[in-house]
Amino acid sequence: MISFKEALTLIAKHLSPFPPIYLPVWEAKDFVLAEDVIAKVDVPNRDVSLKDGFAVRSEDISEANPENPVVLNLVGQVFAGGDEDFEVLPGTCVRITAGAPLPQGANAVLSEEFSRVEGDKILALADAPCGLNVLKRGEDLSADNIILKAGTLLSPMEVGILAAAGFDRVKVFPRPKVKIIATGDEVVAPGKPLEPGKLYASNLVTLVSWCKHFGFPVSWALINDEKSSLKKAIEETFSQNDVLITSGGAWRGPKDLVLKVLEDLGWQEIFNYVRIGPGKAVSFGKVDEKVIFTLPGGPPSNQMAFLNLALPGLFKLSGRDMDPFPTIKAFNRKPLSGQKHWTQFFFGKLFKEEDKVYFEASPFKSRLSYLGQAEALAVLPEGKTIIVAGEPLCVRLLKPFCSCSF
Amino acid sequence: MISFKEALTLIAKHLSPFPPIYLPVWEAKDFVLAEDVIAKVDVPNRDVSLKDGFAVRSEDISEANPENPVVLNLVGQVFAGGDEDFEVLPGTCVRITAGAPLPQGANAVLSEEFSRVEGDKILALADAPCGLNVLKRGEDLSADNIILKAGTLLSPMEVGILAAAGFDRVKVFPRPKVKIIATGDEVVAPGKPLEPGKLYASNLVTLVSWCKHFGFPVSWALINDEKSSLKKAIEETFSQNDVLITSGGAWRGPKDLVLKVLEDLGWQEIFNYVRIGPGKAVSFGKVDEKVIFTLPGGPPSNQMAFLNLALPGLFKLSGRDMDPFPTIKAFNRKPLSGQKHWTQFFFGKLFKEEDKVYFEASPFKSRLSYLGQAEALAVLPEGKTIIVAGEPLCVRLLKPFCSCSF
Repeated sequence: MISFKEALTLIAKHLSPFPPIYLPVWEAKDFVLAEDVIAKVDVPNRDVSLKDGFAVRSEDISEANPENPVVLNLVGQVFAGGDEDFEVLPGTCVRITAGAPLPQGANAVLSEEFSRVEGDKILALADAPCGLNVLKRGEDLSADNIILKAGTLLSPMEVGILAAAGFDRVKVFPRPKVKIIATGDEVVAPGKPLEPGKLYASNLVTLVSWCKHFGFPVSWALINDEKSSLKKAIEETFSQNDVLITSGGAWRGPKDLVLKVLEDLGWQEIFNYVRIGPGKAVSFGKVDEKVIFTLPGGPPSNQMAFLNLALPGLFKLSGRDMDPFPTIKAFNRKPLSGQKHWTQFFFGKLFKEEDKVYFEASPFKSRLSYLGQAEALAVLPEGKTIIVAGEPLCVRLLKPFCSCSF
Repeated sequence: MISFKEALTLIAKHLSPFPPIYLPVWEAKDFVLAEDVIAKVDVPNRDVSLKDGFAVRSEDISEANPENPVVLNLVGQVFAGGDEDFEVLPGTCVRITAGAPLPQGANAVLSEEFSRVEGDKILALADAPCGLNVLKRGEDLSADNIILKAGTLLSPMEVGILAAAGFDRVKVFPRPKVKIIATGDEVVAPGKPLEPGKLYASNLVTLVSWCKHFGFPVSWALINDEKSSLKKAIEETFSQNDVLITSGGAWRGPKDLVLKVLEDLGWQEIFNYVRIGPGKAVSFGKVDEKVIFTLPGGPPSNQMAFLNLALPGLFKLSGRDMDPFPTIKAFNRKPLSGQKHWTQFFFGKLFKEEDKVYFEASPFKSRLSYLGQAEALAVLPEGKTIIVAGEPLCVRLLKPFCSCSF
């Protein structure tokens, strides 16, 4: 059995993003840019006004103030997006709206509140230094400059900037198509009748939901403990997906068929079993270019193996940083202990008290409530056998958390 | 003009969640439960084994150890999900897999590694106290108990628990259907040719992306500064959506038609203009049950009005807490200043140094790079005119951020 670190290193080594695709900017949020992006246009592409007011020649009104207003002839009006064309000659001005191009001759915009209109004249009640209320061509974005770097995980604001810079589609790494197969004669699809000794496919619902949460296209199947059905389902998976994640049947028993079928299919086993708890019965491999993670079936083991190994793998395939969750510093409330040569994971709740955040591992009595209460994930790394109460630790946030308030 | 706090209070007062709907558990992640959920079934619904091993009568092997193994007759095998039926009589045992129901007569499971099989007998090399490796009926979830409370924002693990408890669909608050209309003769859809003095609809792309980010069904339109077109677009919006958000045309100029059209449509103006910067030209109102936010068109104003007022409104309609972003404590790097009677917002970057997180407001020179660099949002509340360098503040996280590392 390898260590958790070795497992992550092997995942990083064997997986890399798929060839880039083009996506419309409308859909590119949370994808990773596959290339540096260079602006196609200046933004704005002419000098424009930042305010509603009057385009003026700064020098005409340099002495203006409320006691000594300067009179200018109003010769026209320009609107944002309009095609009106005027020239501001000495002693004149043009009414202008925010976003409208500055007419020829003008070099400043006198804001409305510092003027008074009287017929076809205006009184300037203040000066307007050269450039005032003017957004120069290229001041927001400049053509031919790199505006975003390859590797950027695109935020809503960044896709807006790409649109502003002249792009309607962008080159990003695609996300892998994932299929999740849950195995087990005891596992029943949600809502179906439940015989004694059977259980609903809760792992499957959770795994599918995590995939959706991070935007992975995902489908699922529920297969009984019958080798030929499982083999057929896995072969079908490979024909239509990039990644297979199995849930259950990963142990060594007579009905644990997942690894047997993968061996029949000639898979390249990259690792099988990792020194993590819960979740040791996790394996990772490939069949040609198809990626496989097999997860154990017990709910906490299933989750821990998924969140700490399979999910980082999916992120690597998408070109993203491998750590899927934000982190926060917290203080430990209940001692966390484990074996020296293992990496131990804990789900827990967070508490905010005065200035500090506390992590309290959930009791493990009920495996499902244990998962339900999970707000954060703590780790007791290999080599360390205890994190005492009061010790600071870094936890991963599984839910949005406010660690301070306004 | 009202204060930011008053604006938020009015939003909270005038908006409430729509009537609940039923969603399949597969799609319920990130929706808010509209009722307490009571488990329909026990999980597990029989006593089951937690390990692969042998179902035994604890008392038979209470003296077993490697030096003095106890011999038991192996009378059969039970599998998870199987329908085999055995009784464990004194002196016998049944092979069992993890998840399989405990046969009658047995009260513990001896794990494989503490046994040796010899033909139709096994040698027990250790004792197995009563209940060892057995998950009692109802121990994970107990029927008729409340497992999740109304108001819960469902995580992937919680939807799994709902499935485990017997649900294939759950009662949640729907998310409002949003239409975003950008106005302005100068605004051009991404990818179209760009004449001088025009600009691409970057606000629109960003607003649509934020809506998608939070799972709101969203559509958009781009309408020129022509009153009848705008009126028609808004009427169409109301016939098919719950919320209208407009971008641009919200000022008082001759081509600022949004409020004029809304007045023509007899809207109930709840507020118009708020003492926030950037973003003051924001308004909120209703036409019958349809909700309207009008946002100013300048990119930073547009974003700040959306993130701080419209988005909290969308959250309120979805039954969620009104604060859309997680928060974190940071130390201020550059002084933030503003007017006493205004609430001032700042976008900025975060820096991690040793144990601390620092917030540095982005320079405002380029309005679009200002937005692109936004990792966090800081607020200078009304009544306070400066946050000095070194002062701690609470910031909203606009991107996932790791404030500590492992």
